[in-house]
Amino acid sequence: MADPIQNLTLELRRGTLVLTVLSQLEEQQYGYSLKQRLADQGVDIDQGTLYPLLRRLEKQGLLTSEWSLTESRPRRYYVLNEAGQEAFQTLKQEWTALARTLERILGKDEDHES
Amino acid sequence: MADPIQNLTLELRRGTLVLTVLSQLEEQQYGYSLKQRLADQGVDIDQGTLYPLLRRLEKQGLLTSEWSLTESRPRRYYVLNEAGQEAFQTLKQEWTALARTLERILGKDEDHES
Repeated sequence: MADPIQNLTLELRRGTLVLTVLSQLEEQQYGYSLKQRLADQGVDIDQGTLYPLLRRLEKQGLLTSEWSLTESRPRRYYVLNEAGQEAFQTLKQEWTALARTLERILGKDEDHES
Repeated sequence: MADPIQNLTLELRRGTLVLTVLSQLEEQQYGYSLKQRLADQGVDIDQGTLYPLLRRLEKQGLLTSEWSLTESRPRRYYVLNEAGQEAFQTLKQEWTALARTLERILGKDEDHES
């Protein structure tokens, strides 16, 4: 069995990944530029996770993509469409509420320990 | 296909659920008392989710349980063991780092919009 703590940590991160990705796609990005932007903000995600996630979000109707042929090689650019904007706002609100709840619970816990 | 936004929201919550549950098990609780404690803190979780989760966490070696026969009906009490304490501390740190990153990213985004 894999290390349960490691699995739980991954599960915790995974839930926030979509929100993080959506937050960077109000302006269009191609895979690698998005990966770099995320890295700059402290979120490391490998291409084997990011690229399928972008395709999944497009399939779910949250992103629109188009090929650009103006650079040295074709690049597929992704951007939030209207449904994606809506999803982003909803997840952001959900996250804010969740963060407040967790802060309250974990903060209490610290008081309790001291 | 189910509403993608709803699924993404559930995914976001699910990641934090284990952390929330672990945070309440420094003192032993039985299923229903735990459910009530969580509800008091603003986390609604139904028994069909909570009970299997407790069994899973015990199987992963993070919780210890024992039956108590002193009440009107047998109750199974769960509590963090040493590995569970460690998992809780690790997840809490991970969460704090994650929350800081998200706050930075989403905060920036708001500045950008205004």
